[in-house]
Amino acid sequence: MSRLTQRRRITRLTLVGSGGDARQRSSREDVLAVEEPLEVRVNGESFSVTMRTPGQDFDLVAGFLVSEGILAHPDSLAAMRYCSGVDEDGHQTYNVIDARLAGGARLPASVSARQVYTSSSCGICGTASIDAVSKVAHFVVADDPAPIGLGVLASLPDRLREHQEVFDRTGGVHAAGLFDLTGELLCLREDVGRHNAVDKVVGWALREGRLPLRGTVLQVSGRASFELVQKAQLAGIPILAAVSAPSSLAVDLANRAGMTLAGFSRGSSLNVYSRGDRIREPAAGG
Amino acid sequence: MSRLTQRRRITRLTLVGSGGDARQRSSREDVLAVEEPLEVRVNGESFSVTMRTPGQDFDLVAGFLVSEGILAHPDSLAAMRYCSGVDEDGHQTYNVIDARLAGGARLPASVSARQVYTSSSCGICGTASIDAVSKVAHFVVADDPAPIGLGVLASLPDRLREHQEVFDRTGGVHAAGLFDLTGELLCLREDVGRHNAVDKVVGWALREGRLPLRGTVLQVSGRASFELVQKAQLAGIPILAAVSAPSSLAVDLANRAGMTLAGFSRGSSLNVYSRGDRIREPAAGG
Repeated sequence: MSRLTQRRRITRLTLVGSGGDARQRSSREDVLAVEEPLEVRVNGESFSVTMRTPGQDFDLVAGFLVSEGILAHPDSLAAMRYCSGVDEDGHQTYNVIDARLAGGARLPASVSARQVYTSSSCGICGTASIDAVSKVAHFVVADDPAPIGLGVLASLPDRLREHQEVFDRTGGVHAAGLFDLTGELLCLREDVGRHNAVDKVVGWALREGRLPLRGTVLQVSGRASFELVQKAQLAGIPILAAVSAPSSLAVDLANRAGMTLAGFSRGSSLNVYSRGDRIREPAAGG
Repeated sequence: MSRLTQRRRITRLTLVGSGGDARQRSSREDVLAVEEPLEVRVNGESFSVTMRTPGQDFDLVAGFLVSEGILAHPDSLAAMRYCSGVDEDGHQTYNVIDARLAGGARLPASVSARQVYTSSSCGICGTASIDAVSKVAHFVVADDPAPIGLGVLASLPDRLREHQEVFDRTGGVHAAGLFDLTGELLCLREDVGRHNAVDKVVGWALREGRLPLRGTVLQVSGRASFELVQKAQLAGIPILAAVSAPSSLAVDLANRAGMTLAGFSRGSSLNVYSRGDRIREPAAGG
């Protein structure tokens, strides 16, 4: 059995007849996307727990640490290992990973353990702001020319969809795909969590020594939130495209970062929310 | 300007012509769902920061505290107030809320500040498990008969959609709708975060003195994750229906809790993953 999907017996109920006054009932096996908790430890200390689809866990942890602003270079990550542990049935759980930072590297004081999803204590009531959720970017994307054809960019959702193996079986996962500027797929990851899918892509890139990801496009299956734009920024990705809508804050951050943000990207059209100059268009027509 | 939506100038690019060798370009104002951070403080101490769509913030905070297992009764919540604070332009930010627990009530030791999204320190490497993300439920849903017609249950996604005002304008938000067993809408909330939309519904119910929500159905616009099932359980909701797929762990928890979990709920059909006995069907036909 794959760790990505599991089977469960389900009942399918359908209303039939002119007035929906009858039903059909069928029982069958259904394939579900697996969701399990992963505890991330840094230098042996508990740091975060995320609900994720198992698989590419090392990529997930590495990318998560990049997204938290802790890592920007593979040399800063000395090792990752599964902590041994067993579930009630005596099976290895593979749900705890300890990441060792290199050369005495430590978590920044502002991102100490147990503060990952909480604000730093600002000391002054009322100052909660975007500062509380902002990370310091190691890379600059504004100066990356990254020219891309409109046709290539608009085609990426279809290319992403072609490679979504878990989605095909379950209909229940998000995907993030990293492409080069010609539309070649570099890395695709799927997960029940949209943030995890992006972290897995970024972690793959870190471990491959590819950060910053200049000259690439990140295509995501859902909406573009502030956090997804920030993850792309921290990985040095100059272009982020979403199948659906961005939020206000996603657009604001993309503008500040000098990132191209596209949304409602579907086949032959898309909306551009920032830095449209990177998108090369054919001659005007129609 | 509404705090739910904001306008931004965007560029729409469309490929036209037989080979997509030409383009149309238009510039227009687009409406985006607002995303802003909200810092939740409990008894003056910073507890969590969430990215949310502003509006119904008191509901969001109350529901979040229910979902964290901290509150189950409105009397436990003495007061909520916005902390004063201003942004760079001197405007009140409304992005920090302090919740005061009543009668000297405190956070449980296991849920102390800064641990919300991190596991408790278990002391034994490798034991990260579902325990790390599980909350203690105050209410039992297994014994709630909550009979519902298949036709009513299958119609809820359409009813939810009818009332999604922010989605209509932005295409970029999730929704959660609470219905009674006849399909009457009790409360609908929208948010850029799917968990927030549910927390807002639950917080509304807490403040209205309606917990536990026996005899109700929660319809959500997206998938059903473990956390959404848990939020429904902590609010005493016996039936959860999702437009899309549940995860494996969502099904497992629904089974343990005795909750009815439906997925792929679309007009005239749906999948039942647990406790199908609550769903009343018309006579077999077709």
